Order: sequence, then C-alpha cells, then structure tokens
Amino acid sequence: MSDTVTTPSTVASEAGTIVLGDNQYGKAEVRLVRVDRDTRRHRVTEVSVTSQLRGDFASAHLEGDNSPVVATDTQKNTIFAFAKDGIGSPEEFAIRLAEHFTSSFDWVSGGRWGVKQYTWERIPTTLTNNASDGTHDHAFVKGGTETRTAVVQRAGEDVFVLAGLEDLSVLKSTGSEFHGFPRDRYTTLAETDDRILATSVKARWRYTIPDVDYNAVYADVRRILLEAFADVHSYALQQTLYKMGERVLAAHAEIGEIRFSMPNLHHFLVDFTPFGLENPNEVFYAADRPYGLIEGEVKRSGVAPEPRAWATVAGFC
Amino acid sequence: MSDTVTTPSTVASEAGTIVLGDNQYGKAEVRLVRVDRDTRRHRVTEVSVTSQLRGDFASAHLEGDNSPVVATDTQKNTIFAFAKDGIGSPEEFAIRLAEHFTSSFDWVSGGRWGVKQYTWERIPTTLTNNASDGTHDHAFVKGGTETRTAVVQRAGEDVFVLAGLEDLSVLKSTGSEFHGFPRDRYTTLAETDDRILATSVKARWRYTIPDVDYNAVYADVRRILLEAFADVHSYALQQTLYKMGERVLAAHAEIGEIRFSMPNLHHFLVDFTPFGLENPNEVFYAADRPYGLIEGEVKRSGVAPEPRAWATVAGFC
Amino acid sequence: MSDTVTTPSTVASEAGTIVLGDNQYGKAEVRLVRVDRDTRRHRVTEVSVTSQLRGDFASAHLEGDNSPVVATDTQKNTIFAFAKDGIGSPEEFAIRLAEHFTSSFDWVSGGRWGVKQYTWERIPTTLTNNASDGTHDHAFVKGGTETRTAVVQRAGEDVFVLAGLEDLSVLKSTGSEFHGFPRDRYTTLAETDDRILATSVKARWRYTIPDVDYNAVYADVRRILLEAFADVHSYALQQTLYKMGERVLAAHAEIGEIRFSMPNLHHFLVDFTPFGLENPNEVFYAADRPYGLIEGEVKRSGVAPEPRAWATVAGFC
Amino acid sequence: MSDTVTTPSTVASEAGTIVLGDNQYGKAEVRLVRVDRDTRRHRVTEVSVTSQLRGDFASAHLEGDNSPVVATDTQKNTIFAFAKDGIGSPEEFAIRLAEHFTSSFDWVSGGRWGVKQYTWERIPTTLTNNASDGTHDHAFVKGGTETRTAVVQRAGEDVFVLAGLEDLSVLKSTGSEFHGFPRDRYTTLAETDDRILATSVKARWRYTIPDVDYNAVYADVRRILLEAFADVHSYALQQTLYKMGERVLAAHAEIGEIRFSMPNLHHFLVDFTPFGLENPNEVFYAADRPYGLIEGEVKRSGVAPEPRAWATVAGFC
Repeated sequence: MSDTVTTPSTVASEAGTIVLGDNQYGKAEVRLVRVDRDTRRHRVTEVSVTSQLRGDFASAHLEGDNSPVVATDTQKNTIFAFAKDGIGSPEEFAIRLAEHFTSSFDWVSGGRWGVKQYTWERIPTTLTNNASDGTHDHAFVKGGTETRTAVVQRAGEDVFVLAGLEDLSVLKSTGSEFHGFPRDRYTTLAETDDRILATSVKARWRYTIPDVDYNAVYADVRRILLEAFADVHSYALQQTLYKMGERVLAAHAEIGEIRFSMPNLHHFLVDFTPFGLENPNEVFYAADRPYGLIEGEVKRSGVAPEPRAWATVAGFC
Repeated sequence: MSDTVTTPSTVASEAGTIVLGDNQYGKAEVRLVRVDRDTRRHRVTEVSVTSQLRGDFASAHLEGDNSPVVATDTQKNTIFAFAKDGIGSPEEFAIRLAEHFTSSFDWVSGGRWGVKQYTWERIPTTLTNNASDGTHDHAFVKGGTETRTAVVQRAGEDVFVLAGLEDLSVLKSTGSEFHGFPRDRYTTLAETDDRILATSVKARWRYTIPDVDYNAVYADVRRILLEAFADVHSYALQQTLYKMGERVLAAHAEIGEIRFSMPNLHHFLVDFTPFGLENPNEVFYAADRPYGLIEGEVKRSGVAPEPRAWATVAGFC
Repeated sequence: MSDTVTTPSTVASEAGTIVLGDNQYGKAEVRLVRVDRDTRRHRVTEVSVTSQLRGDFASAHLEGDNSPVVATDTQKNTIFAFAKDGIGSPEEFAIRLAEHFTSSFDWVSGGRWGVKQYTWERIPTTLTNNASDGTHDHAFVKGGTETRTAVVQRAGEDVFVLAGLEDLSVLKSTGSEFHGFPRDRYTTLAETDDRILATSVKARWRYTIPDVDYNAVYADVRRILLEAFADVHSYALQQTLYKMGERVLAAHAEIGEIRFSMPNLHHFLVDFTPFGLENPNEVFYAADRPYGLIEGEVKRSGVAPEPRAWATVAGFC
Repeated sequence: MSDTVTTPSTVASEAGTIVLGDNQYGKAEVRLVRVDRDTRRHRVTEVSVTSQLRGDFASAHLEGDNSPVVATDTQKNTIFAFAKDGIGSPEEFAIRLAEHFTSSFDWVSGGRWGVKQYTWERIPTTLTNNASDGTHDHAFVKGGTETRTAVVQRAGEDVFVLAGLEDLSVLKSTGSEFHGFPRDRYTTLAETDDRILATSVKARWRYTIPDVDYNAVYADVRRILLEAFADVHSYALQQTLYKMGERVLAAHAEIGEIRFSMPNLHHFLVDFTPFGLENPNEVFYAADRPYGLIEGEVKRSGVAPEPRAWATVAGFC
C-alpha cells in the first residue's frame, strides 16, 4: 500500500536544474517550567524553547536518508536535560544549546535557538506560613502582559545574540499630537493636537559584545522603554519609537542596534454631536483593525550590519 | 433579484406547531476607553460592553417587522453616550444600561449586560515632569493577566448582579499532592505527594444585596482567591477550589454563591532516567491539551437558587 | 515545607452555613485521530472529547479525600480505549462514554460528554497509485470552516443528546434589508434596502427520540441551514434565524428544538464621496468589533422544556 | 500639561553617534469585501491588505515633522478606493498600490504591500430562485482552511512578487516512515516504518517574470502541493517538502524559488498495553506542542538570490 514517487523521468531530467536552497529544522515551542528549590523559597522559570539546526541535511531532502537528521525529538530531550543545570537567562540557555549541537555533530554548522520567557511573580500574602517579605515562598501569579524573547543564531564559530520583548501594551491619554501630514485626493483624516497614543511594543536589540549580564540589561531596557514612551511628548509614533531606541542605545554601550514593530492602536473620539452632547477627549472607541504599523531601527553609526543575526527573524523584528 | 421565501404552504401548515422560543439580541464587545481628566492626573478605564435585550420581538422573527427592534447600532451609541457620565464600576455601568433600556421601551422587559474590564497601571518613572508618587500622570502600562467581568441580568424589576474574573493564572511549585483515587482497568496515573499545581482561575459570584461597593469588594475577593490558592496545602484541585470559595463567602456576607471553572494545567515531571540523570521535581513539561477541568459552586445553605441570574452565562460560570 | 490550612476555627464555625453546590470535573479536549484501515481505502475521524463526571464528590472538596475521584487521567485513557472500537458518530461515542462511567462507578450519577469533530476530505489526485474515484486512499485535506459538535448529558437513567455546529461562515451580497426600526435620541443608523448579510452560524438542536441516524441527520440539517440562509430574503437577521430553525424542525420530526447564536458581522459600505467616486454597493469595510449578536430558539409547541439537556452548555447555545 | 523631551544635552551629544536605520510604516489589515455585481450572478472577493511605505521619513523620526508622512489613514482610504476598480488578483492589486504610492510621492522610494485572500464558495441549493448550476447567485459559504497570500515589494523601479498560501492542513494515515536517524545520549525516539504524517503547509514562491496569470498559477500550484503531499511515500518530512517544491518548479517556469515552513504535527500512537488491548495504528493522540518545524527552500540553480523580495517577510517564509 506504500506510495511511490511517480515523478516521470522526463520531469526528473528537467529537474536537474532544481536544487535545495537554505533549510533548517528542529523542535518548536518546547515549554517547560524549571523549579529552583535549593532553599524553601523556590524560584520558577517558565520558557518556551525552539531549536533549529542548520548544516548539511541534503540527503534527507533528496533521498530520504536520515543519517544526519538529529531527530527533533532528540532536540526536545536535550532542551529538557539542559534545563537540569538551570536556565540562567534565556540568552545563556540558548547559547549553551547552540554550543552543544554544533560541537556534537560535525555536519551541524549552526542554527537558531529561540526562547520566550513568561513572568511569574510571588503571590502577596499576609499569612505567615511559607512566606517572607510579604510574599509566598512557592506560590506565584502570572504577571505583566509582555513576553521576554531571545534569539541566538550561530554560524560556525560566530554567535549572535538578540534580546527582546513583545506584547508590552502601553497607552497615553494625552501628550500626543498628529498634524502637518500631506493631503491628497484620498486624505480625510483631521489634524489633532491631543489624542490617545496606544501601542503594543515589540522590540529586539542586538548585543555587540559577549558575556553581558543579560537579566540585568533586560530589566533596564524594559524600564527605559516604558519611561521613554511616557516621557516623550509625541508628534508622531515614529518620533516616539526613535526616542525609545535612542535612549536605550545611549544607556547601553553593549547594544549596537534596536528594532521596533509598533502598531498604532487607534482610539477614535466618539462623535457625540447627534446626541446633543460634548466629548472633550473623554470617550474613545478602541478599534481593532485596521491599525497603523510603525517599524524602524535605531543603531550606532559605527556598527556594521550583521544580517546573520537577523536571518529568519519574523517580520521587521 | 430579491430572494423569496419559498417554504411551500404544506410545510407552512405543518409549521403551525413550530414556535419562537426564548431570544435575545444586541451589540457585543463595544470596546471603549473612558478618560477622566478633571485633574492633570488622568484615570483611564477600558471596558468591553455587550448589551442584549429581551422582550417581545416576535414580529421581527416571524414577519421581518422591525418596529420593536431597538437597533444594535443604537445600543452601541447608548453605551458610548452613557460612558460620558463615567463608568464607576462595571457592575454599576451595566445596571444603568439595564435601567435605561427597560424603562425607555415598553416591550423591552429585560436583558443581559456584560462588561469586561482591563487593567491599566501607571508607568513608574523617575523623571519629574507629569508624575507624582513615582508614577506618571497620564501614561499607563497594561497590567496583570486577568480580566474583571460583570454580568447584570434584569427581568422586569428584578436585577441580578454577577461579578467575576477570568484568566488569573497561578502556580504552586510544591504543597500539592494527589493520591488515594480509585484504580480500574484504564488507570495508569501514579500517585504523588509533591506536584506542581497550576490553574487559570475563572470565577463568578452573585451579590444578594444591592448597592455594594463593587470595586472594593472585587479587589478584596481577588486578594482572598490568590491568598487561598497559595495558602491551602492541596490534596486535590477540588479541595483548593472549595477553600477558595469558602474563604470568599466567610469574608463577604454580601455574596451568596461563587462558581469556579478551573483547568488543571498539567506539568509533567520529565523522565531523566534514559539520560542517566535524576529529576528531583526540578524540570517539568508544561502540557497544553488535554487538561483537567474542575468546576464547582460554593454557596450559603440559606440562599435560594436564582437561575435568572445565571441564564445564558457561558459554561459552568 | 508543606502548606497548612490556616482557616481559623472561628471562621470554620461561621462557615458551617457554607456548603458545596453543583460540581463536575473531568478531562477536557482529548484530541485523537481514529484511522479505520480495514481496507486500503482508509477513513480518518478526528475528534476532541471532553468528559465531565457528576455525582458524590463531596469528600474531595471538603476533606481532600480522593477515594471517589475517578482521575481525569483515567477518563482520558478511557476515551482513547473506547476509540479502539470506532467512533461511529460523535453522539454515539459520547453516549457510550456516559454509559460506561455511570455504570462502572456507583457514585457517578451522571455527567456531560462533549465532542467536537473536524472535517477531513480526500485529496483529489489524477495520479493512479493509491487512489480511486479521483481521490486518494489515505491522504486528506482539512475541509470547511465549521466544526461539528455534540453534547450528551446523563442524569441517572435519563440521556439527553444535543447535536450542533459552529463557525459556519456565510455571506449574502444582496437580498437583505433593514428598516422600520424605532428611532430615539441615540439612533443614527440609516435604513437600507440592500446590504451585505454575513454571520457565523452556531447552532445546537435537541433530539427527542433515541437511536437517531446522527450522521445522516447532521448532514441534512447542515444542508438545510445553508439553503435557508441563501434562500430567505431577509428583513432582519432575526427573521433569517427563525426561518432556518423552522425549516429544520419542519423536515426533522426527531428534533424538538434548535437554538442559534448568530453574530451580525457588519460590512459597512465605504463612503467614496470625499474621493469623488460612487460606491453602488461594491466596496465594503469588514468590521471586527463591535458586532450584532442575535440569539434565539425555535421549538415545537408540544415539546416540554428540558433544562437538564442544556445545563452548563456555553452561552445561548 | 504637555510632556517634554527631557533627554539631557549631555546624552544628546553622546547620541550624535546614534542614527536612524531602516524603517517602514503604513496601515495593516485593511479588510474589505468587493462585490462584482454587473450580472445577477455576483462574485465576492474578500481581502485583508497591508500597505507599508519606505523612503525618506527621517524628519518624522528625528523632529516629529510629519510633512512627508502620508497618513496611514490615507493609505487605508486609497486601498478602499482602488478596490472600486476591482481586485483582479491579490498580486495585481498589490502591484497597483505599489505603483500609486511610489509615483505619487517623490520621497516614497518603495515599500511592501501584503494581501491575504479568503475563499468564498457558492452555497449549493436545489431551490430554483437566484441560482444556476446548482449553486446560489449571491449566497456564499467560507471554504477551505487555507489563506492565499501575496507580498509585493518595490524598490525604486524594481518590483518583486511573492505568492503563497498558509494553513493548508493535510494528513496521511500511512505512507510515511521515519528511521535511520543518529542516536546519542538524549535520543529515545523509536524508529517507525508506518506513521501518520500531518502538517499545515505555509509556502511562498517568487515569480521571476512579470505579467503572470496569477490566479491560474496559484490554483495549479495549490493542486500540485496537495497531490505531491499525497503521492510521495515519505521517509522524512524534509523529503516530502523537497518533492513538493520540485514538482512546483518543474511545472512552472515562471517560478524561480519556493520556500516552505511546515510543522510536523505529531500524532502519537496510544499505548494500549496497560489496558490489555492492541493498537495496530488505529488510535492516535493529536499533540499540540512541541511540534517539529521543517523549513526549506527549493530553487533553480540559475536564479540569482533576491533578498529584496524577501525583506521583512515573516520567519522562513
């Protein structure tokens, strides 16, 4: 009952000019919780890890010969086993995986290891058992809306580290204007000097030196992004984006470039005129689609581009 | 080119025994942001409101006569207009809408008004402009993972108020056991005296008196739910559920019953034996599906059931 | 390090009036593929099954005593094992599970078994191996957007069967009007005698007799729903809903009632006036939220209500 | 109350080395339905369009000067207005938008226009009004699970066209093996010579000549992909992927390369040994996560790479 490859030989000869291009494969979204329980005050780390290998896998594609194919199931097992030694930071965990796979299999020349980390915060409690500092030793509540991200790419001996975050939702109820844009036949938008500005920040930044204190820098970049969004009086979301990037680079010499993808989540002032009411910027309709989409990079002028760091990274960032 | 109703008359006569049953209609998920800007320290309230009317709408169903059909677009406009006067609490906003629709249209005898509220927290900032108490006056970050919910149902002069929350994700890294369950031909699960317990709490509770301080009680119930989850040493998620409900009722006489729908989000200990490693409750695989699903109600024995409060409420709660 | 239940005894005595109400528990979304391979022309059936037991589980809630708790893992295993004997129809599979659990465990008095079924269609092929009738023997493509649903509830010896479907997306580009609705202070909607009518049908119907040919009736109800949506010239979505139900009941005496939840998925005519263009019902903006939501039941006048059939069924249907 | 940009001047001077990198902006997910109603047999086309402009927008980023910023609202209006003249194919619609924006505004040097198209099929009907060939003239049901995609990128006078599809779910119940892979310390996977192979195909291909009959080629590529998946006896998903691409290129000289991202959606044989049953490849657990992820490109050896065609395209394809 087995299928047969029925591509006729005439096509096969014409297909001589058809070749395999770039490829990668692995196991996606291995979600695990690591509990550090060396003291009664536990720490929990939840990550979702994707491992993808690059190298010489032509035989699998062309002949169905799996002798070089490190099974995706094996990649999954390896991720679990490496968590035994602790996660550290998402970046370090990915770097360890990259080192393992490229050093263990000759034909694996590189790959891409992505990690997403979810936030767990201690549950506040006034009850005295199993708690200290007003929080519980081993009970946690998921916190925040954003996800921390890391992507490590390795090509031979070269290792590239991108850190980032996504789904960081922010909103300003004033301090945002939008005017001065060109008007053509299709322009109907009114100018405004006071609007709601809302977005969901997705950002990735590239480290240009190794051995960064990834957790500390991440926390500080997140703080700067929030503070810059709040602080900058905005004449365009583009301007806010640039200032957010500028401040991150100004504060962190270890970062060479930062990319953003930021939707402009429109909040339209509801027209109360038909009801005989006024609406002095009080009631806004929160629209879903369509939405503006502002994407851009802020970088140091002296830093060379490194496309291998960004290869196959989804979208603008 | 208009369509015609081609149901043949023989069917129509047989259809004499076919009648309209319960029905309701309205506008769903009217999402709005209300900005309170009477001082330079703004407050923002984001809600998604669903309004559904009940009453005599038979003519629309049977004859396509819309004379009683308060357009869903009109319901949407009304929601926006009422936000002009402030939201207050989700429960109060829904009560006001219920009063408006039932008093404005004779044939609207009742309905269902649902509100979801999303949390915005002030952005911490050390910059001095537009801030006080270390936080910004008009810049916000979305906080927490849970959504606050309210459902108000009205039947004639009777008003029923359900408050609730959903997507409150919590996890304990120890303090949970599961054993003593019956074993049959299909039982393979091992007993355990130490496991991860994780769930995403969905709860609704019914107020048995009017004029509650809805915002204050909500905050306290949320606090109790978290604290009870953390504090109770669990022999079954059922037991944790019951204790959470018991503590809420013990603390809040204005609540007559509370219902829960709580998935048991399995975290399976990874078997490290094949790798020659031990896994003393350190590395867990976070599974998606299937998941346990534990649902139950905790109530006061003296409180009469009120099915009209729970009509068309999704699922167990 | 174990947690202790610290509810003080004074609360415990006050909690004497706090009792356990309704409850149910089980395993949700057990997703499986059953392959019937008795001939070389395979059949595949993909279902997601949720099993929830009701009965006397007070000891688990009140004392953490799991002696009556048929583990949700055991329920999962049972679902898999029963698939060994074939799925038949989703309704029959759920009935078999209900019979097993209520007959195997004295204290399990009933429960709820929900099944969702996904459609797989044979891949068309002109290649001759492993194919007949122009389609492949064992290769399939997922078809259609709708999901077939079934809910079986059992209370003692009484068995209730609901069949249904959801996410059946339909659209008419003409043959729909909406006018004659009342106008108040908040009404701004214009009347129309030609609009797009679009919805995503969710329906459930209750069988009033046992031993129905569930697969055949399902296929015919689906056909009727589509044909009625297409055929009825609509003056209101309520009218379309009623006609759809009426035709199902007129054709199927084994069905006592049918419930619908149908969003009115708005398609707004784009105003081309500012661009100096006309838009004779050609270009429409497909909006997401808010949306109308029309819900109703069509039933036989002689059929008694059966709330046990609909208990905990999500939403209106 | 307006915010002020408080970046201190010392940072500003250090920021002299911080510059704007690549950027693009526009309106995303403009969802519209175009009705062609020149005859009583209507045709409907539903697309979701994203327009993003590239060029000199530095003043907006650096100074908040919007004089070059063609408002995203204007881009939205333009998309609607262009639909007045018909959609044609997603590729042609995107090409027209690209031509408009780059020719209308000097400083717009290029951009990215993405289109997703959803399938509507005529509702079958046996009723005679408003129908012919057994289907309705103006009533439609959403069909299939896949979405057709197109991405047009323009850089100056150079136009690049990618066509594609996503969410095409396919499954083979036999005709798939996986063995011969290397085994290391972390390998536990058993070899198999008969397994379910299931994936959800995402593919994009690049046209190397202009003026393709995009709709016809799309339909044929879809047919080939399905047929190749069905027909190829698979020793690895990599092999199936390659054969799918090879057959597309062999049949369509206008396509220079095709890229795939194909999850390996695992279906694990349920172990019935504990229940005393056999499971001869009949009952499979359909897992969600983690999943295998196989990505690769098949191309003609003589075709030069064109990174501008793939810039900012999400993920591997």
